[in-house]
Amino acid sequence: TNPVFTGLPTTIFETMSRLAIANGAINLGQGFPDVDGPLDVRQTAADALIAGPNQYPPMLGLPELRQAVAASTKRFYDLDVDWQSEVMVTSGATEALADVLLALLEPGDEVILIEPLYDCYLPLVKRAGGIPVRLRVTPPQWKLDLGKLADAFTENTKAILINNPMNPAGKVFGEEELAAIARLCIEHGVYAICDEVYEHLLFDGRQHLPLMAFPGMRERAVRIGSAGKTFSLTGWKVGYVTAAPNLLDPIAKAHQFVTFTTPPNLQKAVAYGLGKEDSYFLTLRDEMQAKRDRFASGLAALGFGVLPCEGTYFLTCDVSTLGLQGTDVDICRQLVEEAGVAAVPVSAFYVADAPTNFVRFCFCKKDEVLDGALERLDAFL
Amino acid sequence: TNPVFTGLPTTIFETMSRLAIANGAINLGQGFPDVDGPLDVRQTAADALIAGPNQYPPMLGLPELRQAVAASTKRFYDLDVDWQSEVMVTSGATEALADVLLALLEPGDEVILIEPLYDCYLPLVKRAGGIPVRLRVTPPQWKLDLGKLADAFTENTKAILINNPMNPAGKVFGEEELAAIARLCIEHGVYAICDEVYEHLLFDGRQHLPLMAFPGMRERAVRIGSAGKTFSLTGWKVGYVTAAPNLLDPIAKAHQFVTFTTPPNLQKAVAYGLGKEDSYFLTLRDEMQAKRDRFASGLAALGFGVLPCEGTYFLTCDVSTLGLQGTDVDICRQLVEEAGVAAVPVSAFYVADAPTNFVRFCFCKKDEVLDGALERLDAFL
Ligand SMILES: CSCCC(=O)C(=O)O
Ligand SMILES: CSCCC(=O)C(=O)O
Repeated sequence: TNPVFTGLPTTIFETMSRLAIANGAINLGQGFPDVDGPLDVRQTAADALIAGPNQYPPMLGLPELRQAVAASTKRFYDLDVDWQSEVMVTSGATEALADVLLALLEPGDEVILIEPLYDCYLPLVKRAGGIPVRLRVTPPQWKLDLGKLADAFTENTKAILINNPMNPAGKVFGEEELAAIARLCIEHGVYAICDEVYEHLLFDGRQHLPLMAFPGMRERAVRIGSAGKTFSLTGWKVGYVTAAPNLLDPIAKAHQFVTFTTPPNLQKAVAYGLGKEDSYFLTLRDEMQAKRDRFASGLAALGFGVLPCEGTYFLTCDVSTLGLQGTDVDICRQLVEEAGVAAVPVSAFYVADAPTNFVRFCFCKKDEVLDGALERLDAFL
Repeated sequence: TNPVFTGLPTTIFETMSRLAIANGAINLGQGFPDVDGPLDVRQTAADALIAGPNQYPPMLGLPELRQAVAASTKRFYDLDVDWQSEVMVTSGATEALADVLLALLEPGDEVILIEPLYDCYLPLVKRAGGIPVRLRVTPPQWKLDLGKLADAFTENTKAILINNPMNPAGKVFGEEELAAIARLCIEHGVYAICDEVYEHLLFDGRQHLPLMAFPGMRERAVRIGSAGKTFSLTGWKVGYVTAAPNLLDPIAKAHQFVTFTTPPNLQKAVAYGLGKEDSYFLTLRDEMQAKRDRFASGLAALGFGVLPCEGTYFLTCDVSTLGLQGTDVDICRQLVEEAGVAAVPVSAFYVADAPTNFVRFCFCKKDEVLDGALERLDAFL
């Protein structure tokens, strides 16, 4: 069996969710909301199941969803995208990443990854034959060292993979950082693979800046979005890729042999959802920001070293201030088993030499659930 | 970009469906039914969308679907399968194949493929680093040459991929052929990847024999099934993999980074569907057999050299008897543009040196649609 996958542990998110269930814990580990997204979106999907057809939609996705993705890219970022040659629907952002990496990488290509990183990046890069080149943003500010960034680009660099807003750090890349990445990509002829699934979850008035919008990046950026995150329907596994035609073409070829297509009723409903008024997206963001504030102040009051969260629905905390024994992994085990609250150890987002004093909490939960978690943590501490 | 995908044409099924739409043709190309599967199955999925939760289900699939897959494997084939360690749900059989090949193959591993072959097999094997070794079954009987089969196994063979019943040939592998494959797999320590998505579409009293059921194969066969084919809901993209725990483990690791999971409402509905009484599966088969007979006799009356169809919902015909000019590709173009009937050229199912006198018709269509196609073909010829 292939060494990339053999002996690999089950993903940390799944592991923590299983432990949460086994221990009757409040699950603030795996990132998913505990309230399903809009009923009208779900009703649209349900109606389409009954009305049909439930047969293969076009391989690139339903035209109405591809048009909706293009229209929302125009609406939110003033980017002109041709839906016919530049937009493809996938079975979630994970599939999109798999397609993109399998399509763009050749054996020996270097891919720059920024730690802390989402857990699928490394195995997907390796399985596609790529050589991961690691770079790090460091807490508490999670700033990118622009000198080290420049050093990471070599003549073998094929792509840089960036997650903006960034899970688990809650970091939103700044204009200066993005401009530096863009400049280096152009200088070295490198693709930017932009996992922007949290594009609608930026706080404190921040605006999302797609790397694709920077001068010269239109041709070399691949933008990945997700209905799961935008509509609080993580189980639907509907994602989308936007890229210039010459990039989308091989990506679509990979997609056609990875899942081929995505359920048409869900696509139809997401197309409807993307057409919602601005107020939907603004309310999602504002409600999430209020949850962040509620939970962050509660954690801080308990002594957690809460780091800033500029976007995503994750809070990272320094737990070295709590007086507990052991690493982040040990502490997460204690929290799930003894406090009854599941979190995720941030060391799981590193390839090696991880800091071991951070844990991540997911805060896209009902207020009473967040309050309940705070009470349990209080009782435990 | 990666050479396996660069410059690859769009899949023949998609191409023919697009041509069918552009020409207002009756689409007997791409394999999908024109009547959606059971309303109660669809209603179950619709209800689950409204009731929720619509969040990530477990990575391996909903327990109730994994249990239903295990139970139906027992019911239909008397195979004992442990749902917890041996069954995984995927986003369609295509994803299952991608997961299995990415998980099991290492660079340089040989994989035996049997032509005519389904179009994703070759690029997936190549992209996973495997070396395809081709073997052929030849019309009209599509018999496997057991001597050539034995010759195809070398010390580098890692797996044989078999599609039974076989698309596009309509062949059902016989017990002697399967026993020979099993013997060689055991002798050479080779895995059998069994694409059995048409397992419920065998005609004339034939029984499906999973390769996994042969002595010694329980540990080395990977069985792939599909709700799309079994419930006439090809757009749902719900598949399942059954394999011994030591094989399923790396396959699940690949899956967790390819799509991670599959929409829970569709999984719930498929679990319900797999629990249907035998009569559902028998009626599906009998209705399909009646359509085969109706369409085959119509085609034969028009002069097509209709080959036997023992399973699947495809009929392959020799068109050299029709007096038309050109290859199967030319003839399919004439048929879609001039006759108004889309079919698929069988040469698309070969890597090289393809026969060019066969076309494939999909017959899982309403009787009046099949009759209409026959009328159009008659008028054209
Ligand atoms: C695919 S499960 C993980 C969900 C998620 O995005 C996270 O928890 O970081
Ligand atoms: C995935 S589209 C092709 C459907 C099919 O199985 C076929 O037409 O052979």
